Amino acid sequence: MIQPIAFGDNTLRLLDQRLLPNREEWLELTDPQQVIDAIRDLVVRGAPAIGVTAAYGLVLGAGKLPDRRPEFDQAFAALCERMVVARPTAVNLAWAVRRMRTVVEALPAASVKSLRAALLGEARAMEAQDVEANRALGQHGAKLLGDNATVLTHCNAGALATAGYGTALGVVRAAVELGKSIKVLADETRPYLQGARLTAWELHRDNIPCTVITDSMCGHMMQRGAVDVVVVGADCIAANGDVANKIGTYMVAVLAHEHGIPFYVAAPTSTIDLERLTGADIPIEERDGEEVLMIGGQRMAPVGVSALYPAFDITPARLVDAIITETGVATAPYQESLRARCAAATGC
Amino acid sequence: MIQPIAFGDNTLRLLDQRLLPNREEWLELTDPQQVIDAIRDLVVRGAPAIGVTAAYGLVLGAGKLPDRRPEFDQAFAALCERMVVARPTAVNLAWAVRRMRTVVEALPAASVKSLRAALLGEARAMEAQDVEANRALGQHGAKLLGDNATVLTHCNAGALATAGYGTALGVVRAAVELGKSIKVLADETRPYLQGARLTAWELHRDNIPCTVITDSMCGHMMQRGAVDVVVVGADCIAANGDVANKIGTYMVAVLAHEHGIPFYVAAPTSTIDLERLTGADIPIEERDGEEVLMIGGQRMAPVGVSALYPAFDITPARLVDAIITETGVATAPYQESLRARCAAATGC
Repeated sequence: MIQPIAFGDNTLRLLDQRLLPNREEWLELTDPQQVIDAIRDLVVRGAPAIGVTAAYGLVLGAGKLPDRRPEFDQAFAALCERMVVARPTAVNLAWAVRRMRTVVEALPAASVKSLRAALLGEARAMEAQDVEANRALGQHGAKLLGDNATVLTHCNAGALATAGYGTALGVVRAAVELGKSIKVLADETRPYLQGARLTAWELHRDNIPCTVITDSMCGHMMQRGAVDVVVVGADCIAANGDVANKIGTYMVAVLAHEHGIPFYVAAPTSTIDLERLTGADIPIEERDGEEVLMIGGQRMAPVGVSALYPAFDITPARLVDAIITETGVATAPYQESLRARCAAATGC
Repeated sequence: MIQPIAFGDNTLRLLDQRLLPNREEWLELTDPQQVIDAIRDLVVRGAPAIGVTAAYGLVLGAGKLPDRRPEFDQAFAALCERMVVARPTAVNLAWAVRRMRTVVEALPAASVKSLRAALLGEARAMEAQDVEANRALGQHGAKLLGDNATVLTHCNAGALATAGYGTALGVVRAAVELGKSIKVLADETRPYLQGARLTAWELHRDNIPCTVITDSMCGHMMQRGAVDVVVVGADCIAANGDVANKIGTYMVAVLAHEHGIPFYVAAPTSTIDLERLTGADIPIEERDGEEVLMIGGQRMAPVGVSALYPAFDITPARLVDAIITETGVATAPYQESLRARCAAATGC
């Protein structure tokens, strides 16, 4: 199973997801600004993967900051501010940066050398915990999938979107490991085509059957009876169970509801932000509409016509049948169940 | 306003819609097999445009068939059989071929020379009637659009999909001609991108504001309150009001219903097939999944992964607030209202 993030020798290696599935190239980053750029430019994407990447970016930064305190603390705080705004919606980014700041704040008397070691330790812990959380949520979620189920997923919430194993695709992998026969129907997920490019790539590597459809086909497939269950990831989950995820997720949720098909969200508790009361409190990233109009280097619409690109949407909690976390499965009312899942998690 | 079909000097000129918006090239066809290929390969698409194109294809064929009857009749019938299967869903194709066959059958004693003239006359009449029907349905539909309305449309049901003026975009054009300020939100319409390539192109030429979104964004735009009304075309309408149209139309209809947004279908009565009782009687064309995976000459999914490509879907009548035809606006119960609209039409 692929792991898209690797750190060693003061170098962060990222699988360049912009080039998949046609080219498998790794970028080697040594400077925190390169990491910020890589997050913003979608070299790495997926809320948990962004969080771990940002943590390693701060490790790289810490190595270049002043060797004395409080100069180090000030410079580190400034770097954290720059890192956290790289992308606004994925809450794991803010969560990871906060964990790293807490390391520094919790050791006011430590040397900068010790701090650097502690920060590296924290980033490594976050990476390991993410994979562990995904395996745990996979176990919980796998029980919700019947044998011979066809799972529809949107975007890529797989190994590539995390430190490894995946959230939505972690549920699929765990079901397959339990011996269940699972097929995946992958929405291609315009405009970045995470479904066609990334979900199909990593499932094909793992010999899990995957068929691609355009996003516009998901309703028809449900109408045909070709979808048993929907499992998607999340970029941020509010306290009331509203879910921010890749643009189009809301469309899938409405259609699943219309057809009585279970709609599940798989995400570690690090993606839940209890301080955001509802989806209205989650900022939606607006990207450049040109990213919609340019495909394969060619502009699809005539010059003079513009496009919109809200990168995420909000699925209201009433359309979500369950939220699968590493500490168990939360169902409505989410106000209580999500709080309980977070309380059961380490460091949530 | 663009007209994508032009006939003269025994030559059918078709605007090659595969190349828009980047290149404006016309194909010159003189053989009926070229016309069949052009329909199948999407040089021309859109139910009314396919119908008129097929009629001219039969005119070209008639010119090359035996000069004596009954040899002409047999060969013409065989050509009609080949023409009608070029694409299965757009009912205007079968309707146009039937009209042409009727010309031959209604003149059993005529010379082949007279038949050829009659067939050309019938094709020219169909072309003129299509534009006329679109202008008439546009007038009816324009009354349903408020001033300053934002109209969401899916695929291209414009001048390019007809002999001219358009159905869904005919409604938009008529509203603009009435002095209303109308904005169009165009679903890009994967995989063929009729929205981004064709709808945007023809509206931009006519200075009607158009913004492109991915298909997956339409739910989010409705959730934002950015859509006042949906108007789409149709490839076939069953007697009960079920509508076959470009894949993704069903998704848009479910989302419009969820948000209480009116969902209108604009089509001439030639697109209504009263012999098909419900949508279940309409064949859905399945195209090659590779057309989904290849974008701009590059394959988007890894080799070994396949895709599905149902080219149309069925929107059940209960999601359709009105069907706008050239003889007036039909509403539920459609069983009666569609029959009345057809009865009011010439030659339906």
